[in-house]
Amino acid sequence: MPKKSANKGAKEGKVLVDPWGSSLIEDYERLIKEFGLEHFDNNEFPEPNLQMRRGINFGGQDLKAISDAIKQKKPHYCLTGIMPSSEKIHLGTETVVQNVKYFQDHGAKTFLLVADLEAQATRGVSLEEGKRRALEFHIPTYVALGLDPKKTIFYLQSENKKVSNLAAVCAQKITENEFRAIYGSVHPAKVMSAFIQVGDILWPQLGEEMPGIIPVGIDQAPHIRMTRDVARRLKGEHKFFLPSAVYNKYTSALDGSFKMSKNEAVGKMELPEENISSLDKKINKALTGGRATMEEQRKKGGIPEKCVVFEYCKNHFIRDDKGLNEMFEGCVSGKNLCGECKAKYGIPYAKKFFEDFNKKFEEAKKNIGKINFLK
Amino acid sequence: MPKKSANKGAKEGKVLVDPWGSSLIEDYERLIKEFGLEHFDNNEFPEPNLQMRRGINFGGQDLKAISDAIKQKKPHYCLTGIMPSSEKIHLGTETVVQNVKYFQDHGAKTFLLVADLEAQATRGVSLEEGKRRALEFHIPTYVALGLDPKKTIFYLQSENKKVSNLAAVCAQKITENEFRAIYGSVHPAKVMSAFIQVGDILWPQLGEEMPGIIPVGIDQAPHIRMTRDVARRLKGEHKFFLPSAVYNKYTSALDGSFKMSKNEAVGKMELPEENISSLDKKINKALTGGRATMEEQRKKGGIPEKCVVFEYCKNHFIRDDKGLNEMFEGCVSGKNLCGECKAKYGIPYAKKFFEDFNKKFEEAKKNIGKINFLK
Repeated sequence: MPKKSANKGAKEGKVLVDPWGSSLIEDYERLIKEFGLEHFDNNEFPEPNLQMRRGINFGGQDLKAISDAIKQKKPHYCLTGIMPSSEKIHLGTETVVQNVKYFQDHGAKTFLLVADLEAQATRGVSLEEGKRRALEFHIPTYVALGLDPKKTIFYLQSENKKVSNLAAVCAQKITENEFRAIYGSVHPAKVMSAFIQVGDILWPQLGEEMPGIIPVGIDQAPHIRMTRDVARRLKGEHKFFLPSAVYNKYTSALDGSFKMSKNEAVGKMELPEENISSLDKKINKALTGGRATMEEQRKKGGIPEKCVVFEYCKNHFIRDDKGLNEMFEGCVSGKNLCGECKAKYGIPYAKKFFEDFNKKFEEAKKNIGKINFLK
Repeated sequence: MPKKSANKGAKEGKVLVDPWGSSLIEDYERLIKEFGLEHFDNNEFPEPNLQMRRGINFGGQDLKAISDAIKQKKPHYCLTGIMPSSEKIHLGTETVVQNVKYFQDHGAKTFLLVADLEAQATRGVSLEEGKRRALEFHIPTYVALGLDPKKTIFYLQSENKKVSNLAAVCAQKITENEFRAIYGSVHPAKVMSAFIQVGDILWPQLGEEMPGIIPVGIDQAPHIRMTRDVARRLKGEHKFFLPSAVYNKYTSALDGSFKMSKNEAVGKMELPEENISSLDKKINKALTGGRATMEEQRKKGGIPEKCVVFEYCKNHFIRDDKGLNEMFEGCVSGKNLCGECKAKYGIPYAKKFFEDFNKKFEEAKKNIGKINFLK
């Protein structure tokens, strides 16, 4: 199973890419091979964003269809979804939102779906409650992170008949064994939610033939793969472009584990951060790339590729390349030990990031009355 | 598999019940045992219809919930569906429509769904085409057979969000192995369509807590069974009554085979019958319960329980019990040989039935503009 091997790779020793290069760690290379992905080439995209420039976007599928559409100003779309099950979002989600924002800024018709149907079915969140959470939390979060609500088509899965209707058609195109190979089981609930996702990804093409891009973490690759299989097999009935995808790297947990840490003591990096003053404590506990002794670190320098604080700064907190470069140089030169580095970069940049976010989030919440869901 | 055993039983020698009795043939007794059904008791239902009186309805589930609601004039519903894939309906469908009409006439809130989603997914019929066929053929057919369009709530699966939303919730409640045990496989398309059917059966209870009855052939028992399991398991979230069901016997093909004959030469009994003058030929070719020789038949009488013409007259063509009794007596007494009986009863009653139907069908088509689908 793809997810398993990704996790396995991570546990065997995850090493981050260097901040300016585009070389990939072995694990991501393996994923690219395993899933038959393309390498992400930011030279293809005009004004690449931070996620592209810093190698956070590592792979994709049919990326040229999208970069061509951008350059030729041809119709294309970008779609992403929120699951309104909790009222916290893992910081890593910012990467997806930044990618959506990039495509939105470059002309993509942009769809944000609220997976209220899935939240109801899998987490017992009522449709009303799902809608409430989306409006009070998720959508303001996405807007605070950069999404332009005026240029976004918002919809609720439960209110989009085209999605569920398309789901029923798409389910014809995948066999039981294929489904099991992709998802590990054929539980009816999994089947329903998988094909509703397929419907979500493809339905914008019902109105207009155009390529579309789905920015996701690599854990979503099975969905994309199945959707591409379905689109290919539907060719006789619908002229669907196979959906394009851009895959971003995971953001580690504070303790350096690959996925959200089970170690509650370490704390989580989530949006919103209500207690900004606690960030010091969280960051001071985070895993770094320090050496065994102070002497060794002064001599050899730290290892930013192993440092979660550096990863967070690179992926989220430090937007200016100059600032990130300083942090990097201070580490590898041995000039800043980990404690100093955290005090100088990690903590202040994190605080600034969350303060900015909180301000924008409150503002977005005030304007939420202007959001209309597609009918 | 239920369906298989039903067919198997039939091939081993299907014997019809005598027209006035309520004794069941061994095969239907076996089905009742196998599916854990109740025997249908027409004493429970006020003014039993032909299908009840003549033992065509042989079993059911939670029938008392419905007969009580009828007697106590409490809210209850009846639901049936049409699959707009072809523009012919097997004559056997009349039995279902008569049952729906009975419950409608006795106060049930009546729903007729158009399974356009299923027709699209499984037969490639577009939603537009499905709607057209429903309006131009299926709904007028049901109205011609007795359904009161003014007291019926019509809806298209593709336009009823409550159905697809409920389907996603219901799919949580059945495991992969349970689904396989019921349906034989877990093909994604089967999963989608099965849970959409579950949604169809249960959604009327979302607005109003009330029992509901689904009149069906025994081949639909697996759907009902799964829906009852789902409703039971949803008790914490929704207060659903387990759906009641009434099961009717199959109508044989003209050659006496259990299901629609593969023998095209024999012809089919379908609605509408465009060529009423061809009915002579069809009925003359049909399997009867005649004896080996004329002498034997004169002496012992024919066997109406083995005669497809008698079955058709009993189930569909001869509404007056007196006429049917005459036909029966003429047969078992040896007075009428098969040819005479066909000329006297089978052919004229069939012609009258189809002529009446055609007239009502044309009338219903004229009034189709008054049909509104639920929005």
